[in-house]
Amino acid sequence: MSVGGDTTGGAQHSRKVLSLQSMNANIRAMQYAVLGPMEVRARQLELELKQGTGKPFDSVIRANIGDCHAMDQIPVTYIRQVLGLCLNNSLLTSPDFPEDAKDHARRILSACRGHSLGSYTEGVGIDIIHRSVADFIQRRDGGVQARPKDVIITEGATEGIINILKMLNQPRDGKPTGVLVPVPQYPLYSATLTEFAMAQVNYSLDEEHNWALDIAELKRAIDECRSRCNPAAIVVINPGNPTGQVLTEENIRDVIRFAQEEGLFLIADEVYQDNVYGKDSTFHSFKKVMMQMGSPYYKMELASFYTASKGLVGECGLRGAFMEVINMDPDVRAMLTKLFTVSHPNTVGQVCIDCAVNPPKPGDPSYATFTSEREGILVSLAERAQLVTDAFNSIPGVQCNEVQGSMFAFPRLDLPAKLISQAKRLGQEPDYFYASQLLEHTGVFVVPGSGFGQKPGTFHFRTTILPSPELLKKMVQRFRVFHEKFIQSFM
Amino acid sequence: MSVGGDTTGGAQHSRKVLSLQSMNANIRAMQYAVLGPMEVRARQLELELKQGTGKPFDSVIRANIGDCHAMDQIPVTYIRQVLGLCLNNSLLTSPDFPEDAKDHARRILSACRGHSLGSYTEGVGIDIIHRSVADFIQRRDGGVQARPKDVIITEGATEGIINILKMLNQPRDGKPTGVLVPVPQYPLYSATLTEFAMAQVNYSLDEEHNWALDIAELKRAIDECRSRCNPAAIVVINPGNPTGQVLTEENIRDVIRFAQEEGLFLIADEVYQDNVYGKDSTFHSFKKVMMQMGSPYYKMELASFYTASKGLVGECGLRGAFMEVINMDPDVRAMLTKLFTVSHPNTVGQVCIDCAVNPPKPGDPSYATFTSEREGILVSLAERAQLVTDAFNSIPGVQCNEVQGSMFAFPRLDLPAKLISQAKRLGQEPDYFYASQLLEHTGVFVVPGSGFGQKPGTFHFRTTILPSPELLKKMVQRFRVFHEKFIQSFM
Repeated sequence: MSVGGDTTGGAQHSRKVLSLQSMNANIRAMQYAVLGPMEVRARQLELELKQGTGKPFDSVIRANIGDCHAMDQIPVTYIRQVLGLCLNNSLLTSPDFPEDAKDHARRILSACRGHSLGSYTEGVGIDIIHRSVADFIQRRDGGVQARPKDVIITEGATEGIINILKMLNQPRDGKPTGVLVPVPQYPLYSATLTEFAMAQVNYSLDEEHNWALDIAELKRAIDECRSRCNPAAIVVINPGNPTGQVLTEENIRDVIRFAQEEGLFLIADEVYQDNVYGKDSTFHSFKKVMMQMGSPYYKMELASFYTASKGLVGECGLRGAFMEVINMDPDVRAMLTKLFTVSHPNTVGQVCIDCAVNPPKPGDPSYATFTSEREGILVSLAERAQLVTDAFNSIPGVQCNEVQGSMFAFPRLDLPAKLISQAKRLGQEPDYFYASQLLEHTGVFVVPGSGFGQKPGTFHFRTTILPSPELLKKMVQRFRVFHEKFIQSFM
Repeated sequence: MSVGGDTTGGAQHSRKVLSLQSMNANIRAMQYAVLGPMEVRARQLELELKQGTGKPFDSVIRANIGDCHAMDQIPVTYIRQVLGLCLNNSLLTSPDFPEDAKDHARRILSACRGHSLGSYTEGVGIDIIHRSVADFIQRRDGGVQARPKDVIITEGATEGIINILKMLNQPRDGKPTGVLVPVPQYPLYSATLTEFAMAQVNYSLDEEHNWALDIAELKRAIDECRSRCNPAAIVVINPGNPTGQVLTEENIRDVIRFAQEEGLFLIADEVYQDNVYGKDSTFHSFKKVMMQMGSPYYKMELASFYTASKGLVGECGLRGAFMEVINMDPDVRAMLTKLFTVSHPNTVGQVCIDCAVNPPKPGDPSYATFTSEREGILVSLAERAQLVTDAFNSIPGVQCNEVQGSMFAFPRLDLPAKLISQAKRLGQEPDYFYASQLLEHTGVFVVPGSGFGQKPGTFHFRTTILPSPELLKKMVQRFRVFHEKFIQSFM
C-alpha cells in the first residue's frame, strides 16, 4: 500500500457510516430535558468544587431529578434484606436476618429456575409476583378486581410506557398515530413520540385550577389534531409530574367520559400514587374509577404504571416496576407479551416490586421497623411538600400551586421583559436562561419549565421536594437571594 | 341510560382501540423463535408432570435456552457477596464476608450518589465501571488500547444491540437500511429488524467449513440486496450462536476487509467470548484484529458486545452487559449517549459487570475460591461441549460440527421425504415437526433450526450444552431412541 493510501485508495469509504446526516433522524430530533446540558454543567461544577476551585457556594443542590436515595432517603431495610438473602442463600441460616425476610426470599427463590435470581424469567416477569401485584391493586382499589394475568413486570415504568406507545404506533391513511399529552408533561413522552415519529397532541393543564384537566381544552386539542394525525390514546399523569397535583375523582370521571367518547386508549401514569401529601387529596386510580362508572366505561382499554423508584421505596437504581393492562383484545395482548419475550426485566427489580406490594404485616418480625421507616419517610416528604409550597409562594414574583403529591413543585416565574429579551439575544428560552444562571451562581439545580412544555408566555421551573428539610431551607435561601438580585438587574 | 345502551349508544367506540388490524404491524410481524409455542407446551408438560399426569418421561430437559443457573451452574460466590454487601451495607462490618469483597463493595458505593445502589446513575452507567471494563478489554486484546469513554454499560447485551440497530435505521431514497445477518442467526436480530422495518440481508455460514464466513457469499448477499435496501452494517456472531464455532483470525481479517471495502459498520456480537473450548480455538476480538491490521482498517466503526449472562458468570437474570463502540463520529456518539439517558441500566447488573471484568487477583482473600469455581465451571463446560459433539455424531442421520465455543450445538438432521411431506401437510416446518414431537415424546426441549434460519432443504436444531453431564447423557439417550423410531416410521 502506498503512503497516503488511507485517504486516497479508501476515499470512497473513509467517511463514517454513521453521520448526523445518515443516522436515524428521529433520534437526532429527540430531546430529553431533564438531563441536558445543565446536567453536564452541574457535574462540572461538582468536580470544580471537589478540586477546590472557588465558587460562591459550597455544594450543588440537585433538585433536578426525583432521585430519592441520592438525597439521602434511606433504603427500606426489609427490602434490602430480602434482596441480600435472595442473592446470598448462605445468609438464609444467619441469625442476623429476620424470619419474615427469609421466608420472603425462599418464596421468591422457589419460583426461580435453579433457585437462582441468575436465571431467565418469563418476559413479563415471575408468575408469583403477578399474584402479589394483583392483590396489592385490589386492596388499593377498594376491592375492584385485579387479575394476575393483567400484570406485566417491567424494567422501570419507562419500559412499559415505551412498549404501550410502540404498540399504538401505526400510521394510517398517511397520518401518524396521535397521543394526547399534558402540557407540562414528563419528557419521556415527548422523547418517545419523537423517536417513533408519532404525533404529540398537547393539551394544557389548568394552572389556575391547580393543574386540573379541562375537558373543553381536551376537546379543542383533539379536534384540532385530526387533520394531521389519528388520535388513539391519552396520557394522564396523576399525581402530576412536573406539576405535583392530585386529580379529584370528579376530574378523573370527566376525563374517562371524554376518552370513551373519543375512542381513546387510556395511559394512566400513576407512578407517584404512593406520594400523596395534600390534606384533602386522595389518590384514585383511573382503573378503579372507570370500573365503578359501569357500562360502557368498564370495558375501556387502559394501561396503568407503578414503580419501585418512587414512593416509600425510592429504589430508582434497581429498575423495578409493573403495569396493569386491562380490556386489551386477547390477540393484541398476545402480541404485547411477545414484545416482552425479547428480554425480561431484571430479577432484582422484580423482587423489589414484590416487596413493595407485599411488605411486612402486623405480627411479622419486621413490621415494627418497616412501619417506623415508612412513617419517617412519608411524614418527612409531606413536610417538605408543604415547606416548598410555602417557601416559593413567599418570594415576590413566584407563584406555586400546592404540592399535593408526587415529588415536584412547578412554580411560575414573573420574568421582566428585559430579561426575556436578553435570553432571546443569547438564543435561550427565558426560563432556561434563568435556571442556568441560578445553577451558575448558587449551585441550585432545577429544570427549566420549557423542558416540560408550558403555556406560551409563561415561565416555570421544576424542583423536587427531596432535599432534607435543612438542605431545602438552604436551597430556598440561595434561591431567594439570587432571584431578587437577578430580577432587579433587569428592571 | 337504557338497558343495552352499552352496545347501541356506545357502538361507535365499543370496538377496541387496539386490534390486530390497528396495532403496530411490525410488531405483529415480529417472530422470536427461541420462546414460541414450544415454550408454552414445555411449561404445560412441566405442570402436567407435577400434577402426576402419566408421561413417557419424568422431566422436561430444557436445552432450548442458554440459561446457566437454571441448569445448576453455580453463581460465582465472590460476585454474590459483593452484590449482597452493596445492598446491605450493615454487612460491611460482618466477619463472614472477605475483605476484598468488602473493598469492592465500598469502591462501588462510593461512586453511587447517596452511597446507594438505589440512586440513578448516568444513562451509560457508573463511571468507575467504564474504567474497569476498559482495563479488561485492553488485557483481553493483548494491550490494544481501550478507552473508558468508549464503553457503555447496558441492560443486557440486547439493549446495546437494539440501540445500535436503531441508530442505523434511516430509510434513504425510499429504501430501508440493510443489515447483513448470518444464516443461521440469533433471532434477536431478525425480530429487531422486523420491528424497525429494516432490511435483513442474509448471508449463509459455511457448514462444511465449520460455519466459517465465506467472502464470496458475503459479496453475493450484498450485491443482491442493493436494489431493495441500503446496506449499512454487518452482524457477526463469534463464538457462534446457534452454531458453536469460533472464527479463525484469518477469517476475521477477511470479514474486516470485506466490511471496509463495502463501507459497513461492524456489529461484533461477542457475548460468548469467555465460552471457548476447542483445543485449537482462540477467541480474537474483531476490535483487536482490526486495530492490528493498521490503516485503513483501524478507523472502522465497530460496536462489540459483552454480557454477564454467559461465560463463567452466567447471571442471565441480572441483565448486566456492556458494549464498546469505537471510531463513531463524536456528534453521532453524543446522540447515542442521549438515547441512553432516557433510562439507565439497573445498578445490580452494573456491579455484576464490574465483578466479571475485575475478579479477585492472586493474593486476594477470595482468589482461591474464585479460581476453583472458575476452573470447575469452565472445565465442565468444555467436557460437555465434547460430549454433545461426540454423542450427536454417533447417531445415524445426525451430523454435528465441533462445539468450539458458545453454549450451543446446531446439529443437522437427515429427514426422510415422507416425514417432510407429513410436516407440510400439518403446515409445519419439517424441523419444527421433528422438535415438537421430540418434546412431546421425550420431554427433550430443543429449538428447531427454522427459528434461526438455515439453507433451504437442510434441517437442524439448536441444543445447549448446559445440562449436567448426567442429564446430558440422559438427554442424548432419549434423543437417540426417539430419533431411530421416529425416522423409521417414515421410511
